[in-house]
Amino acid sequence: MSNSTSIDDVFGALQDLRARRPLVHNITNYVAMTLTANVLLALGASPAMVHAAEEVEDFIAIADALAINIGTLSPDWVKSMKLAIARANALGKPWVLDPVGCGATPYRTKVAAELSGMRPCVIRGNASEIMSLAGQTGKGGKGVDSLASADDAVGAAAALARQTGAVVAVTGAVDYVTDGVSQVAVHSGHALMPLSTALGCALSAVTAAFAAVRPPRVAAIAALAVFGAAGAAAAQNLRGPGHLPAEICDQLHGMNQATLARFARLSS
Amino acid sequence: MSNSTSIDDVFGALQDLRARRPLVHNITNYVAMTLTANVLLALGASPAMVHAAEEVEDFIAIADALAINIGTLSPDWVKSMKLAIARANALGKPWVLDPVGCGATPYRTKVAAELSGMRPCVIRGNASEIMSLAGQTGKGGKGVDSLASADDAVGAAAALARQTGAVVAVTGAVDYVTDGVSQVAVHSGHALMPLSTALGCALSAVTAAFAAVRPPRVAAIAALAVFGAAGAAAAQNLRGPGHLPAEICDQLHGMNQATLARFARLSS
Amino acid sequence: MSNSTSIDDVFGALQDLRARRPLVHNITNYVAMTLTANVLLALGASPAMVHAAEEVEDFIAIADALAINIGTLSPDWVKSMKLAIARANALGKPWVLDPVGCGATPYRTKVAAELSGMRPCVIRGNASEIMSLAGQTGKGGKGVDSLASADDAVGAAAALARQTGAVVAVTGAVDYVTDGVSQVAVHSGHALMPLSTALGCALSAVTAAFAAVRPPRVAAIAALAVFGAAGAAAAQNLRGPGHLPAEICDQLHGMNQATLARFARLSS
Repeated sequence: MSNSTSIDDVFGALQDLRARRPLVHNITNYVAMTLTANVLLALGASPAMVHAAEEVEDFIAIADALAINIGTLSPDWVKSMKLAIARANALGKPWVLDPVGCGATPYRTKVAAELSGMRPCVIRGNASEIMSLAGQTGKGGKGVDSLASADDAVGAAAALARQTGAVVAVTGAVDYVTDGVSQVAVHSGHALMPLSTALGCALSAVTAAFAAVRPPRVAAIAALAVFGAAGAAAAQNLRGPGHLPAEICDQLHGMNQATLARFARLSS
Repeated sequence: MSNSTSIDDVFGALQDLRARRPLVHNITNYVAMTLTANVLLALGASPAMVHAAEEVEDFIAIADALAINIGTLSPDWVKSMKLAIARANALGKPWVLDPVGCGATPYRTKVAAELSGMRPCVIRGNASEIMSLAGQTGKGGKGVDSLASADDAVGAAAALARQTGAVVAVTGAVDYVTDGVSQVAVHSGHALMPLSTALGCALSAVTAAFAAVRPPRVAAIAALAVFGAAGAAAAQNLRGPGHLPAEICDQLHGMNQATLARFARLSS
Repeated sequence: MSNSTSIDDVFGALQDLRARRPLVHNITNYVAMTLTANVLLALGASPAMVHAAEEVEDFIAIADALAINIGTLSPDWVKSMKLAIARANALGKPWVLDPVGCGATPYRTKVAAELSGMRPCVIRGNASEIMSLAGQTGKGGKGVDSLASADDAVGAAAALARQTGAVVAVTGAVDYVTDGVSQVAVHSGHALMPLSTALGCALSAVTAAFAAVRPPRVAAIAALAVFGAAGAAAAQNLRGPGHLPAEICDQLHGMNQATLARFARLSS
């Protein structure tokens, strides 16, 4: 990308986020709701989960960013997602798409494609999801888990960015952020993280929180670096995935420049 | 209030609750469900989450109290809430209202107002919610978080109590319970608590559990004191909010008179 | 039962499960979703929560087993359950029924009876639920908690197995598995487990995961032994129920033959 982003820039974004305490409107899945709220609170944002068609347009009007996640989608919820997105766009509020399980069923793939055409500022998914959303078939997914690595999906991510105008973040052992022209790799995270549910979903909401204080490219990089560093730091003393969500919240709550620099690295 | 309540009275209420193990019927939000169930179990109550219109009237008939929380409301759920409330009232079973996010959107405010007119025994909310529900505008809220302190809302709480006939509990750094005539302040809790989601929601369910064994005023005071003491005791050795929900459950499970007296204080 | 199953057989089933990493399609309740996903991941399976009528038939087609749980049922979800079950049966994929709260309301009892007639491979419930589903009235339940012990329900479980063709697992201080002819008792678990919500629901999903790699009888025994051993091992150093879910995930993640043999025992 034209402007390089450093770990210092990421920490600056975190400081701004904590100072502004953005209100993040989430329409997300049942599995991820509690964790997402706790992650946003620990990060320094203010979360709300609001999904009724009767109020989503009013709620996004008072919020600073919107996170849309199709993990446990159904037609009523998709209707509300579209209402909230349209209003967010009309008001110039950033919104992030997490196309959970895209490729697993035709319904899910169709909804993800429709939403990706509604100008998200960032799309965040695993390799299988991003490849499916970009119209590529590859190793595919196993339900909501990816069988492909993020490295396999870099080309698909760039194509998807060009198709949609969104910054695309594809996550795996190494994460990549692309605007369709250039890319940044984020090295952070830990092998225990895929064994704890909904961490990717929470990361997408963290991306929305950063999008309230930074442009999409920097927001995506900052979210990956901060959340990945929290995960890596949290996993240091754990023998399994059970306490990982609680430890990640503690690490986010206490995140400082030294921990961030120790557990996250950016490369182009 | 005419009769003063002591910490010893609160512990007596907890002992009775543990002996009776009340069945608490919850119609609550998706974010709070798991925590609410765990908190009620740790306290010594028996929780159930039942929301279908096809069965809520039958379920409240076998339950000892009802907790209604509008955090992730939608029209179908509001319909079920009203059915359950009407049946609870007909059967003389106490019910508690948590008007989550009242004031954030017109829909939410309207539903909260309708439900508050259906004779809850206790209404429990943060300052912004209580001020909005009482028809007052103030500093308002930020989504579901309050920007006002409980101290700001004491007058609104008393007015709301007189309007509805409910005991009103408004929570913040200091909590207040009022019946519209006199008030009690409950000093407990910890600054980490607002950084962990749905603790207020769980507290409202705890209030319903106490309402099964005590009149509304004592039930509200007991819930605030026991839950706040558990939170304060839990936070002693934590460096962040991540493990707070689990620690609060452990503290509720082991709550004794000494811990209660150490971490909660009542004043008029 | 004709063939006896040993703890070594159980560990062999766990090794096969970890090698195959079955995709388990869950249509379960809101309270249990997050825990169920984390338990399945820690066990070595791949979880997904998918409930929309628009996609459940497509999803079970790519999954290895189905877990159906009526904890927070509503008519739309029941419709999806029936679609998924019919497709699972047509494709020869095993499915497990958890009749949460059967007996608590007529609606719940009716739905549980309908689903139990759709050829589940295993039905897993507490004593009250199994007795109600078998058409017996006994001490009944208290909402979703049982007032009867598993010992009381052994006869009902055998009758239910003969009625439905399913293997029936009834859980309590001691667990029993029956095919209607003979039975096995599983001695494991811990007294703290009923104080943490949704562990039974997660166990039913674990049973579905084992049903992807073993016949129903062995799958039910293996699930009870592995999950109960994890619970017993997890509870060793806990003073309350708060951290039990996280600790159970860690124990499942690290489960080996020695821990399994130490904390679970089978008898006929």
